[in-house]
Amino acid sequence: MKILLKNARILTMKNDQIIEGSLVVNNNRIAYIGNDYQSYGPFDREIDCKKNLLMPGFKNAHAHSAMVFLRGKADDERQHEWLFNTCLPREEHLIPEDVYALNKVAYLEYLTSGITAIFDYYFFIPMMAKSAEDFGIRSLLLGTYEHGVTSLEQEVNNYRKYNENKDSLVRFCVGLHSEYTADENRVAKTKEAIEMTHSPFFTHVSETKGEVEGCIQRHNMPPAKYLYENGLFAYGGGGYHCVHLTDEEAQLFKDHNLTIVTCPCSNAKLASGIVPITKYYNMGINIAIGTDGPASNNGLDMFKEMYLLASFNRLQTQDEKFIPAFEFLKMATVNGAKAMGLNDADVLDVNKLADIIMIDLSKPNMQPLNNIVTNLVYAGSKDNVIMTMINGKILYENGKYNINESIEDIYKAADAANERLEKAAKNEL
Amino acid sequence: MKILLKNARILTMKNDQIIEGSLVVNNNRIAYIGNDYQSYGPFDREIDCKKNLLMPGFKNAHAHSAMVFLRGKADDERQHEWLFNTCLPREEHLIPEDVYALNKVAYLEYLTSGITAIFDYYFFIPMMAKSAEDFGIRSLLLGTYEHGVTSLEQEVNNYRKYNENKDSLVRFCVGLHSEYTADENRVAKTKEAIEMTHSPFFTHVSETKGEVEGCIQRHNMPPAKYLYENGLFAYGGGGYHCVHLTDEEAQLFKDHNLTIVTCPCSNAKLASGIVPITKYYNMGINIAIGTDGPASNNGLDMFKEMYLLASFNRLQTQDEKFIPAFEFLKMATVNGAKAMGLNDADVLDVNKLADIIMIDLSKPNMQPLNNIVTNLVYAGSKDNVIMTMINGKILYENGKYNINESIEDIYKAADAANERLEKAAKNEL
Repeated sequence: MKILLKNARILTMKNDQIIEGSLVVNNNRIAYIGNDYQSYGPFDREIDCKKNLLMPGFKNAHAHSAMVFLRGKADDERQHEWLFNTCLPREEHLIPEDVYALNKVAYLEYLTSGITAIFDYYFFIPMMAKSAEDFGIRSLLLGTYEHGVTSLEQEVNNYRKYNENKDSLVRFCVGLHSEYTADENRVAKTKEAIEMTHSPFFTHVSETKGEVEGCIQRHNMPPAKYLYENGLFAYGGGGYHCVHLTDEEAQLFKDHNLTIVTCPCSNAKLASGIVPITKYYNMGINIAIGTDGPASNNGLDMFKEMYLLASFNRLQTQDEKFIPAFEFLKMATVNGAKAMGLNDADVLDVNKLADIIMIDLSKPNMQPLNNIVTNLVYAGSKDNVIMTMINGKILYENGKYNINESIEDIYKAADAANERLEKAAKNEL
Repeated sequence: MKILLKNARILTMKNDQIIEGSLVVNNNRIAYIGNDYQSYGPFDREIDCKKNLLMPGFKNAHAHSAMVFLRGKADDERQHEWLFNTCLPREEHLIPEDVYALNKVAYLEYLTSGITAIFDYYFFIPMMAKSAEDFGIRSLLLGTYEHGVTSLEQEVNNYRKYNENKDSLVRFCVGLHSEYTADENRVAKTKEAIEMTHSPFFTHVSETKGEVEGCIQRHNMPPAKYLYENGLFAYGGGGYHCVHLTDEEAQLFKDHNLTIVTCPCSNAKLASGIVPITKYYNMGINIAIGTDGPASNNGLDMFKEMYLLASFNRLQTQDEKFIPAFEFLKMATVNGAKAMGLNDADVLDVNKLADIIMIDLSKPNMQPLNNIVTNLVYAGSKDNVIMTMINGKILYENGKYNINESIEDIYKAADAANERLEKAAKNEL
């Protein structure tokens, strides 16, 4: 399958320059960028981009996709009640088929904001892999010793199975839910898995003040340091949230090339705090962006995340310069790809994976075209996303989906799962 | 013209309940809400809402629409440089025809996020009135002694002219730009105009700390108090921004039924600060929401404003309950209508003005339909707005505009104005 995207503006994300030209996709990779595309034909499809913008798809570097069934439940409750009274009583009744059905609702939403890859963490790894593959979304799965994975072998096998083929849509990474849910045995086993696989390591870390205080009580040190001292970052990785890292921990992230995956909308919704984005950025730490799960956000929208993060930067900034808008686009694309090991899906270039989105510049929020890059960050919206291509396939175009199933069937299956979990939690089954 | 909107969910905003039924629009007003619409026919148009949501349009209670030409200029500069090096050198070359052309780009954008009424403040009142009338958007214009208005008579005549007919799309209110741009003579003249018209009074107030400090130096009191002491709030009104009100001033707002028009996105973009929304809400002050101008926001999107405001509330909340999501919808609709004197456009009810939007609930960000109200605030996006009706006319539907001009012509005129102002500012004309 060869697709020509002609008459486009192109933001490769290698730098902040926008070039005019065409882009050729051959199967799942970019074959050409420039103005002399004729020799790459014939094409199965030619798309006139009408001077709209092509750029790399967004990387959602922290998600719990299937939690979509919990969206809008107990919204105005506190995190503790929300987790213990609403989430956990339902999650304990989850079966793999639920996760398969629910993931797809989140995937549909990802496409609408141009998210082409997710770093997803939830129950039932094989079913998560199957839903991502069936749907066609690039997915890095975090595997931990919870959620049905009970042996070192299983963890190591998952790592090998999903990382065997570097072109496969689904890959795997070793992790932990968090310090506060892991006993010393689980930490030791995870360390073993990391030594056997050389996997990077990711986990929730320093999301709330209470978590940090608890870890200091348990281990006499804050959680990122504790995990570091236990050797879990031996092959890199990073932390989700990192709202409350100590200066020493932030320096560990910088020195060991670890990624902070910030989730500004989730941290706001759950009142966890404002990430010190300005400090982390000025330290030169790799910062990626995640939506977190739909139960704690509640939308799955990279434009909202970038905007909130940029707002926090401005409100934190004293004498420094504001972080340039282009840097937030980098966090949402290149830095996320780096965190997720998607070295072939970071920028638009020849031989890179064809994970590409098209931004409608003719919408009024982009007018006039004084500065496309700052427009994207400060005025952009998923309303502007008119094409989402993953692995060379256009899955979303002008508000319509091009997937194997009907939207109605996806919603029906998700609603059935939602209803059953609701009843089960209330002992009504 | 009679339009039937059938098979809908309806959030009237009289309370947080969602009813199922149909809504009949007769010319510019709502004729019926219920399930027994047959006797109201025949209809010129019947729309099957497919169980999507009808609700009142959003009221943008503070805007400078025509500043759209400054969007994306000097984005990463400080407010002072931005204002004095970028905005003012261009604005001094504005002619009325520019404002006419530029307003329309902003109006197009308002429709995409379901904004049906604006409280607009900029140069050239007659041209602002004409652009709003020609386009068909409900507009309350703030008139001040700047920007070409040089006599008391002119101000009073504007008030009488635009407020004569309570059904007219364009109305008028007396104001000032701000304390820091008004000398004592201008304050006195404004007070005279207010006494002659009994107009409510609105102005920028306590947007930045520097402004408050300056006012204390000039007048030994902060600006809202200064304006109050000068009798400008004799017939009500309120302030735009109000980020840094003293407790005494906030109490003045409460006691005199004044409105705080908060502009959270602008205050973040320009690093003015975080509005103490939780405090103001708990005091029972009427809070409305404005986007401010596209040069300082940079988008004109009520969903973004509501979300940022809700995020600030959560991050500010200590032991109190979070402000319920419904209250943010109220700020964006009912409270804005109250501030703008649009008593007939606040909620959906029989005989109310037909300023109605339709929200697509079938988009994945609304799924599952666990809680439509919280979904709107926390996951909603202008992507969900599939119809915007103002004064009984559908101006935007399924991403297409139904207006008297082509979008291309509107952009062309705005681009020409933008280009000329740019050149004039650089002495290149």
